[in-house]
Amino acid sequence: MGEAQVSLEHLFRVFTKPEHKDSKLAQIEQHLSDNILDFLSQHVVTKKTSLEEVEKDFANAKVPESPEFVSTHAETLLDKLVAHSVNTYSPTFIGHMTSALPYFHLPLSKLMVGLNQNLVKIETSKAFTPLERQVLGMLHNLVYDRSEAFYEQHLHSAQHALGAFCSGGTIANITALWVARNKLLGPQPGFAGVAKAGLAAAYRFHNINHLGVMCSKRGHYSLSKAVDALGLGREQLIALPAPQQTLDPEKALRAGKRYQEEGNKLLAIVGVGGTTETGHVDPLDELADVAEQLGCWFHVDAAWGGATLFSSQYRDRLKGIERADSVTIDAHKQMYVPMGAGMALFKDPENANAVRHHAQYILRAGSKDLGATTLEGSRNGMAMMVYSALHIFGRRGYELLIDRSIQKAKAFADMIDKHPDFELTTSPTLSLLTYRVCPQALQHTLKQVDDSTRDEINEKIDTLVVSVQKQQREAGKSFVSRTRLEAPDYPAKCITVFRVVLANPLTSHNDLAAILAEQHLLATSTPLWQSLSQLAAQDPA
Amino acid sequence: MGEAQVSLEHLFRVFTKPEHKDSKLAQIEQHLSDNILDFLSQHVVTKKTSLEEVEKDFANAKVPESPEFVSTHAETLLDKLVAHSVNTYSPTFIGHMTSALPYFHLPLSKLMVGLNQNLVKIETSKAFTPLERQVLGMLHNLVYDRSEAFYEQHLHSAQHALGAFCSGGTIANITALWVARNKLLGPQPGFAGVAKAGLAAAYRFHNINHLGVMCSKRGHYSLSKAVDALGLGREQLIALPAPQQTLDPEKALRAGKRYQEEGNKLLAIVGVGGTTETGHVDPLDELADVAEQLGCWFHVDAAWGGATLFSSQYRDRLKGIERADSVTIDAHKQMYVPMGAGMALFKDPENANAVRHHAQYILRAGSKDLGATTLEGSRNGMAMMVYSALHIFGRRGYELLIDRSIQKAKAFADMIDKHPDFELTTSPTLSLLTYRVCPQALQHTLKQVDDSTRDEINEKIDTLVVSVQKQQREAGKSFVSRTRLEAPDYPAKCITVFRVVLANPLTSHNDLAAILAEQHLLATSTPLWQSLSQLAAQDPA
Repeated sequence: MGEAQVSLEHLFRVFTKPEHKDSKLAQIEQHLSDNILDFLSQHVVTKKTSLEEVEKDFANAKVPESPEFVSTHAETLLDKLVAHSVNTYSPTFIGHMTSALPYFHLPLSKLMVGLNQNLVKIETSKAFTPLERQVLGMLHNLVYDRSEAFYEQHLHSAQHALGAFCSGGTIANITALWVARNKLLGPQPGFAGVAKAGLAAAYRFHNINHLGVMCSKRGHYSLSKAVDALGLGREQLIALPAPQQTLDPEKALRAGKRYQEEGNKLLAIVGVGGTTETGHVDPLDELADVAEQLGCWFHVDAAWGGATLFSSQYRDRLKGIERADSVTIDAHKQMYVPMGAGMALFKDPENANAVRHHAQYILRAGSKDLGATTLEGSRNGMAMMVYSALHIFGRRGYELLIDRSIQKAKAFADMIDKHPDFELTTSPTLSLLTYRVCPQALQHTLKQVDDSTRDEINEKIDTLVVSVQKQQREAGKSFVSRTRLEAPDYPAKCITVFRVVLANPLTSHNDLAAILAEQHLLATSTPLWQSLSQLAAQDPA
Repeated sequence: MGEAQVSLEHLFRVFTKPEHKDSKLAQIEQHLSDNILDFLSQHVVTKKTSLEEVEKDFANAKVPESPEFVSTHAETLLDKLVAHSVNTYSPTFIGHMTSALPYFHLPLSKLMVGLNQNLVKIETSKAFTPLERQVLGMLHNLVYDRSEAFYEQHLHSAQHALGAFCSGGTIANITALWVARNKLLGPQPGFAGVAKAGLAAAYRFHNINHLGVMCSKRGHYSLSKAVDALGLGREQLIALPAPQQTLDPEKALRAGKRYQEEGNKLLAIVGVGGTTETGHVDPLDELADVAEQLGCWFHVDAAWGGATLFSSQYRDRLKGIERADSVTIDAHKQMYVPMGAGMALFKDPENANAVRHHAQYILRAGSKDLGATTLEGSRNGMAMMVYSALHIFGRRGYELLIDRSIQKAKAFADMIDKHPDFELTTSPTLSLLTYRVCPQALQHTLKQVDDSTRDEINEKIDTLVVSVQKQQREAGKSFVSRTRLEAPDYPAKCITVFRVVLANPLTSHNDLAAILAEQHLLATSTPLWQSLSQLAAQDPA
């Protein structure tokens, strides 16, 4: 059943002849092209199967011995894979940063695969290399707004790079800190530089005890990976508490001075332009001052929020980003490009040279091969998706999308604020917010009780929030994520909250109202709700 | 002209309505689906434009202010991007590891974008997470061939990972060495481990001067990037000379002992399973012995050659790979998957825990989120492409493809050997080979002259080879790459050679004969050819 012939003829067919128009795969493709929302709602099963059940379909670790017909395989994909995928296009999937994409990316993805360029070197990406450089230049321009002459000089220069295109924000953050590390500990008389001589030798030469990176506790977990991979050590990620969700410049300055007085060197301060958990933006301008005073690199992780710069109304929220030595932006977030399009941008186009490398068969000195300054090697042509999206939306198109997301987040925050049984934990700076469900009376109680009672009650509410979040996810109509954080009202201990990302342009106010109503129903149906309400009733106040 | 309206209606349309069937983008898509080779040969311009000319089309660093109609943009893509792209599907493009792909990846790429899953966490990749784990398991099985019980226990275990899927071989190599480093310098009484405490502290604790990685000079340049990024320093990449193109186990053992006697520690030996430049395979089994004797990690970079394991006839060429602690394989090379599918596999499924990390909103302890042990964060669903290819080809289908590529390389080597004016530099172990063009008489002369005369003549031949390679590339009919290496016949100094990768199933013997004829014509038409021939004539012998 479904076993195809093992012959050169069959293999050649797979390489040279498309599937018939009536084949299953062609049907899938047509359905996607005609109406993707319909395709997804028809094939993604709403009622969620347990992960363990799904795993049974992917349990065989043996490479199949014989070929399978494409159409047989297409059936398998529909039944086993698509059916149990997550409908990230759904307007009620508001729990993560993945959302619906514009239609044109579907045919473009085919073009990308059809061209199958490898951007590591010009010999396999002739026009894609200049295109990627232009995309990096456009984003650089959006952040740093340098002169025309500046871009004319650097955009296509073999000796410079305005940034590094990569698979995502994590690699972008690692790349930025790699460049920062190699520049800070660069070659000088008597020392070959950390790139050549290694980190331990660099510490010995500079008489450094440790090298650290500072951010707030809301900094992305990739920073911790970065200091691990780059050899600094996770303990040298100085993550300051952030009950207000942002990095306090005064505290940062004090902590930085103390760190350096202890015989350490601060490599970088990382300001966040839209934290992953609450969408808050660190005071970038003030943090740039702090970095200057401490003499360290200033990196801004704007993986999520960078696209806010397209909006005249909201771009000020990132004020100071133009002073960053490096900036991370993910096009696969608020630029609505498919997964796999991150960028690290460098203020100074010389800086990427701190990680420049060569090989004999490609990346030869003087070449314009993009691979000479990237952490990744072979890479696909995702830059085309960003290029096309920049042209098809234009700045003003993106502005509309960004403005609408932020306004929608504000409207949802109002909805939550007005609902007696919900508590808004963090208001939206960008299009993220966090909140929790809690009987109204208990909200008052919490303000009056002592610390330990408050902690006890909060733990019970945590359990309620987790339960509601899981039940809602499993019901499959909508998805809101959850996290744990220090809230402005409860700064001492972390609480569990719902986390919402309002990026999908298709999400309506009605969707949001329905999500809230579903959560309320789920919450009030639990036995825990009754006992929490009684807790409030017992309160003498 | 081409400027679209800036309105929410227009934006909504882009997200909710596909392009009309007669639109330019739909036409492009249809052409790709019907006949990709025809699409490419019609739109990719054969006569090559200079890079500087192409750059003019990508010179504007300003984000366009207003939206553009999708169809207008599609015209731009055809004229500026596709026209000057590299036709990697062409049977005469045999210079790099990028080749034609099977048809089914075109519709699958649309499905991937349409599903837009993010594999960092299950909440955005429900079925894709088990699928990716299965794919890693299948490749693990191909390399390590463990018991069914082993895979049953580890394939979907939250505490284990059989490997890390990533964007490509470079990240795979970095990931493998990152795991090796963190394991070697792991936590123990009195030391928190390198992941937490950093590399300098680890050197101090273990009283190590340097930490090194050994490979042959044919090791991939990503290894040099890896030791830089991971903090070991590029000087600690001990790249032994390899005139025979492989790492000599005895020399490796001696060099490793010497290195360790000098107060250093050897982190890893990297054996190559198909070098990028000549396709040679290091003696993996013997290198595994050496690694054992030196007490270090054994990594095999089989980014190119890993797929040889599908072939009953040739899999022995990688004998010993099953003893490696970690293995890199790229599915976007000989598994004919689109760019962006690398894997690092771990013999011991516990090892990935050396880099395990968590966050509050995802990757929670005990979850099966794939992001907990990968260097990258957000990732796309490329694993589906590998999954589908494994099923549609099956082991036996891949076997046919691999066998055919190697046989074709042998046939081409014969052709070169028989041609009087070509010199085969390295014979194919897998489907790569290198050679150069040189007047027959001069080949005899080279065997008789003294070293310095030979070097002088070789430099002139280098110039000829570079010139022929560039002219052929610019003529646009075919593409062969070039590199510089120590050849078996000229071990002391590097020579420049043509480099050929025979992976495209569509490449025929006639194509190869034509490529050789074109090179011969180009070479003999240069003034340099005459002077080289005279050099031979002057030779007293």
